Amino acid sequence: MSKSKVWLRGLSLMILSASLHVPSRAQETPPSNLQTLRAGLNLMPVPASAQIGSGSLKIDGRFTVLLTGHTDARLSGAAERFLERLAKQTGLLIAMKPANGAKATLLVRVDHDSKPVQELGEDESYVLEVAPSGASITAPTDLGALHGLQTFLQLVTVSPDGFVAPAVTIKDTPRFPWRGLMIDTARHFIPLEVLRRNIDGMEAVKMNVFHWHLSENQGFRVESRKFPKLHQMGSDGLYYTQDEIRGLITYARERGIRVVPEFDLPGHSTAWFVGHPEFASAPGPFAIERRWGVFDPAFDPTNEKVYKFLDEFIGEMAKLFPDHFFHVGGDEVNGKQWGANPKIQEFIRAHDLKGNAGLQLYFNKKLQGIVRKHGKSMVGWDEVLDPTLPKDIVIQSWRGQASLAEAARQGYRGILSNGYYLDLGWSAARHYAVDPMGDAASSLSAEEKQRILGGESCMWSEYVNAENIDSRIWPRNAAIAERLWSPQEVRDPASMYARMHVVSAQLEWLGLTHQHNYLRSLRRIAGAASSEEFNALRTLADVVEPVKDYAREQTATEPATSDTPLNRVVDAIPLESTVAREFSEMVDKYVASSCHDATLAGRLHAQLILWRDNDAKLQPLAQRSFLVKEVAATSQDLAAVAAAGLAALDTVEHGGNTDEAWKAQQSAVVQQAQKPKGQLLLMPATAIQKLIDAASAGGSCQLNRSSSTAKDAYRKKFS
Amino acid sequence: MSKSKVWLRGLSLMILSASLHVPSRAQETPPSNLQTLRAGLNLMPVPASAQIGSGSLKIDGRFTVLLTGHTDARLSGAAERFLERLAKQTGLLIAMKPANGAKATLLVRVDHDSKPVQELGEDESYVLEVAPSGASITAPTDLGALHGLQTFLQLVTVSPDGFVAPAVTIKDTPRFPWRGLMIDTARHFIPLEVLRRNIDGMEAVKMNVFHWHLSENQGFRVESRKFPKLHQMGSDGLYYTQDEIRGLITYARERGIRVVPEFDLPGHSTAWFVGHPEFASAPGPFAIERRWGVFDPAFDPTNEKVYKFLDEFIGEMAKLFPDHFFHVGGDEVNGKQWGANPKIQEFIRAHDLKGNAGLQLYFNKKLQGIVRKHGKSMVGWDEVLDPTLPKDIVIQSWRGQASLAEAARQGYRGILSNGYYLDLGWSAARHYAVDPMGDAASSLSAEEKQRILGGESCMWSEYVNAENIDSRIWPRNAAIAERLWSPQEVRDPASMYARMHVVSAQLEWLGLTHQHNYLRSLRRIAGAASSEEFNALRTLADVVEPVKDYAREQTATEPATSDTPLNRVVDAIPLESTVAREFSEMVDKYVASSCHDATLAGRLHAQLILWRDNDAKLQPLAQRSFLVKEVAATSQDLAAVAAAGLAALDTVEHGGNTDEAWKAQQSAVVQQAQKPKGQLLLMPATAIQKLIDAASAGGSCQLNRSSSTAKDAYRKKFS
Repeated sequence: MSKSKVWLRGLSLMILSASLHVPSRAQETPPSNLQTLRAGLNLMPVPASAQIGSGSLKIDGRFTVLLTGHTDARLSGAAERFLERLAKQTGLLIAMKPANGAKATLLVRVDHDSKPVQELGEDESYVLEVAPSGASITAPTDLGALHGLQTFLQLVTVSPDGFVAPAVTIKDTPRFPWRGLMIDTARHFIPLEVLRRNIDGMEAVKMNVFHWHLSENQGFRVESRKFPKLHQMGSDGLYYTQDEIRGLITYARERGIRVVPEFDLPGHSTAWFVGHPEFASAPGPFAIERRWGVFDPAFDPTNEKVYKFLDEFIGEMAKLFPDHFFHVGGDEVNGKQWGANPKIQEFIRAHDLKGNAGLQLYFNKKLQGIVRKHGKSMVGWDEVLDPTLPKDIVIQSWRGQASLAEAARQGYRGILSNGYYLDLGWSAARHYAVDPMGDAASSLSAEEKQRILGGESCMWSEYVNAENIDSRIWPRNAAIAERLWSPQEVRDPASMYARMHVVSAQLEWLGLTHQHNYLRSLRRIAGAASSEEFNALRTLADVVEPVKDYAREQTATEPATSDTPLNRVVDAIPLESTVAREFSEMVDKYVASSCHDATLAGRLHAQLILWRDNDAKLQPLAQRSFLVKEVAATSQDLAAVAAAGLAALDTVEHGGNTDEAWKAQQSAVVQQAQKPKGQLLLMPATAIQKLIDAASAGGSCQLNRSSSTAKDAYRKKFS
Repeated sequence: MSKSKVWLRGLSLMILSASLHVPSRAQETPPSNLQTLRAGLNLMPVPASAQIGSGSLKIDGRFTVLLTGHTDARLSGAAERFLERLAKQTGLLIAMKPANGAKATLLVRVDHDSKPVQELGEDESYVLEVAPSGASITAPTDLGALHGLQTFLQLVTVSPDGFVAPAVTIKDTPRFPWRGLMIDTARHFIPLEVLRRNIDGMEAVKMNVFHWHLSENQGFRVESRKFPKLHQMGSDGLYYTQDEIRGLITYARERGIRVVPEFDLPGHSTAWFVGHPEFASAPGPFAIERRWGVFDPAFDPTNEKVYKFLDEFIGEMAKLFPDHFFHVGGDEVNGKQWGANPKIQEFIRAHDLKGNAGLQLYFNKKLQGIVRKHGKSMVGWDEVLDPTLPKDIVIQSWRGQASLAEAARQGYRGILSNGYYLDLGWSAARHYAVDPMGDAASSLSAEEKQRILGGESCMWSEYVNAENIDSRIWPRNAAIAERLWSPQEVRDPASMYARMHVVSAQLEWLGLTHQHNYLRSLRRIAGAASSEEFNALRTLADVVEPVKDYAREQTATEPATSDTPLNRVVDAIPLESTVAREFSEMVDKYVASSCHDATLAGRLHAQLILWRDNDAKLQPLAQRSFLVKEVAATSQDLAAVAAAGLAALDTVEHGGNTDEAWKAQQSAVVQQAQKPKGQLLLMPATAIQKLIDAASAGGSCQLNRSSSTAKDAYRKKFS
């Protein structure tokens, strides 16, 4: 990389701009240098390249935007929304007035039209330049300009001298063309206003596909004018009218987001059969499913009327949803109805199909023909993958990265969702580590890699409703959005968390409720609690997470259904505990300092005291509220592990017996606390075990600890 | 009061229902007995009478409502909204389905029609009976039923066995027929959605008049089709269309709330003259006023064209606003334009008027005639009071309770707003202590008292916008609502605060933002802060209040205008600090215990340590954010007073020199901290002074303190 090469690939390399006189260091600069940017740019996703300038642009009430070059309704609407957001985000009075020529603070210049129906792979690039004298965004089409406006909003920060945007030149373009969020609106119906605010969130982190999961065993959510029994009988009255759907598609398009509908076939289809039992593989009648799980009902692939129906239905939906892609599901057909139906089994034999799998392939081929007839390309979950299908279909991999790579090898395009299931309660860091080009895909040829279009996070909605869905999606979804937009080498979780923390707060200005609905729900759980009691509940709730993966089903005392209220602590808390994560980081640093860092010791001590004493404050409330009572055992666990942690800290600092028996005793407390109760995990337990290990005889802190200075500092602090 | 008299006047006497065998105590029961109800009923306003039953009604997903008797659209709409609220407030899945006959959980029976246009003094009474087997609301009209539904929602509470409504029989009716909230939508335009959610809040606390302040020097906010230059030139484009106004009136009516418009005349009228300078008392041109204060422009009472204009304009508005009352303002005419206009002064002489005051009286009489011609009764601020005006006008007293009493003596009806100005930053307890029948009114005859219709809280909007208005109105407005609804003897502030705490959380389920916008605004102020830094900012913000009354103008470094951003700490914080109030209560209790209560000592100690150490955590952020920098001095003050408080606590508990010099030194710290900085008051300072006083030589704690037990307990706790 030569000195003259000003443009640097990856913000991870941005540190270079300050050290261009040492070019030999260029290629060694690790992604962890991103951390140096924390106090500066909190961009998420990190742009493809950026060059820091000097000084900053002042943001005040005189801020104006001027659109030059090619301008259309989407762009001017985006500029208006941009000014509104800027006003909210700063609290400044920024008028929605037209800018006065060259004096505008921000000039936006777009070269030419984008496609009337947004297409996969359209140019989304932009260049954003901010100088103390003004800013500009240039982009081939309004799609790039939309992204540039969002980047600008993230640049705006509070400074010692008011709100500013630091001088910077950003050249940005996404790594993948398909960056999606799927929301399951079928298991729990999700109102349109909730979808709209989530689409606003997607725009903020530059996602560009809203995958709308619209039918399930538990509900059929679209008005069909051709087959009105589908929504009338299959939805409990909770469905989207065609006008509402058109409205949402327009709303998404205004934000540079495609809408891909999914109608799951031939399984996951009980709700269709409530109105149309004649298309099922077993006799009816059928009722809307209330339980969660995989169920038997499936379309009858041997029934020619099914294809006639699907032709008409998909024809209707193909007109309603303008996107080129049409998702037909295809997952989790258990084959029980097929196996139990002699006529179907006879059909399999007569057509020499390979069992039920062969029957589904037969169905998929016909389905693919119907979808193509109506001008669309079919998308399906990875069960649909078969080398005999046409190559224009897209495989969405949910079962593993291997199937994505396999699809690419076979010539199919694919998108990754395995590793991006938001409902499983993984940490943002764990999602963030999953790369569509990682694992099996890393060995693909360049041509094969081209077929990997990107990925989609998935919000399945068994335990999700309008009240808590935002906190299940955000802020973790921002980490996945970054994975799909930013250069592959941007992968430092510490930097990601630091930036996500800032972006998370900004998202609330869009109307997302992930932060405030948490507190609102906790207040309901607490009922008429004193401030001290409520704070105690919050202290506990801040450090627990729901059990992970599918453990919620496995640990339920009675199976949850769609009638189960979602008003428990497990439903209210964020899926990732910030307090526990920060505590764990503190413990790691403290142990890494061989327990010499007295400041950290003081902070750990204060935190552990708070936790140890919290249970006594919470117990009276647990006697009054059944929803608090459910977490009483976990509250006792928190007190117990905090006491164990304090014992560890104290023996390190003050000395004392930490033999094997001591360690076993303290560890037993932690192990007890690590057992989920009330479907909750007590997150600080693991870090406290680390503290015990370090403090125990032979542990890193006991071995290294001899300085009396640190002990003195500790004693001074706590006596 | 005989044993057989089951119905007890005032919930304050409710304790009786459990002690009817001791009738002699009945009339001695003081209002403080309300405190015994805290854990039980959190009703606000307290109903006129209530009798506790035994057991409770379980609230679950099968809850249904059945309307019997007279039913209209308002009532069925209210029942639907009730079920929605109940679902949100409990997190239960309560279907909006029609109830099945006698099996309904809640039966509502209304006797007859209410008035098509809601009238002052309509019967608002209801009876609510809750038993373990079911509940019922009976009311003469739907107005009472609406109130009963709100009471039921407040009864619902989380219990050890799920959500319940305790068995109770409530007979309720308001003390005053006019219970209003005025919102000034002219100085700052307040969007309709914000008004709607505040009307929802009014319904929840049984207020029944929304007084809509629509014109000011700073803005004319109503579309006039007859005189479009009024809104086109006088509003910066921020006005309500007539359709929007009709929509809001319908929305309010559905919630049992009248809408009284106010067009302030002849002063406070600059914005009118931007489009119509010909009606002013001085030559134009005029521009929309941006500053705050009282200004010169006033209508010209000597110009006959003014009355022709007002006749047409009020005629238009009288049709738009169906309420019988029409507010014409009439306040704060400074007379400068009149005094400077020789033609006007000549008119005064020619008509033998008593100076400018006589001129305004002349104007008011003609105005009253116009208002009456269009079928309305005139309401005016207390400046309009004159014994020669017809007796159908209503006086709204803002300058003092004396003018209200004087109006009543002269035969005028009146409503009290003096003491209910929400923008002055008073505590809820201070508003709560103001009674329309108190002070000068207490000496009125029974007949004169009848003329006092009630009161109105006032939200003037110099420092209020869509973002922070909710936290300026709520929850304190609930205390004023209770004053206007509940029996006069309901006046215990401790009970009021306990119940307001619960109601405040419930109000957020209506979409009010008083709790979560506080945190959202603080996050903006903090910018990219660490969790520790943000918590430090919150800890400080939790214990400061804006300077009171009109001190914000007086302490401003440069005068605020309508262009001044409202994004500072002073704009974000609630107007009353709950943390400081609770701390103050703790100090009072501790001192009252002669400093013997070791538990309280422990809690005070923990709080003071937190405050003392908070500044060190906040200062790094103050270096990065100009909005935090502004509160850095207050943060240092908090650390200093906390240290002084700790010194006081320590000398009480451990002994030490607390002579006059010590006291003077500690008190000096407190006095320094009591000086407002950044337009903020540090609220815990006063309580800490009490601690110092008690701890000092001769103070109550030093004199009484000899028990070594308490000291031992303290030492045990903190060593």
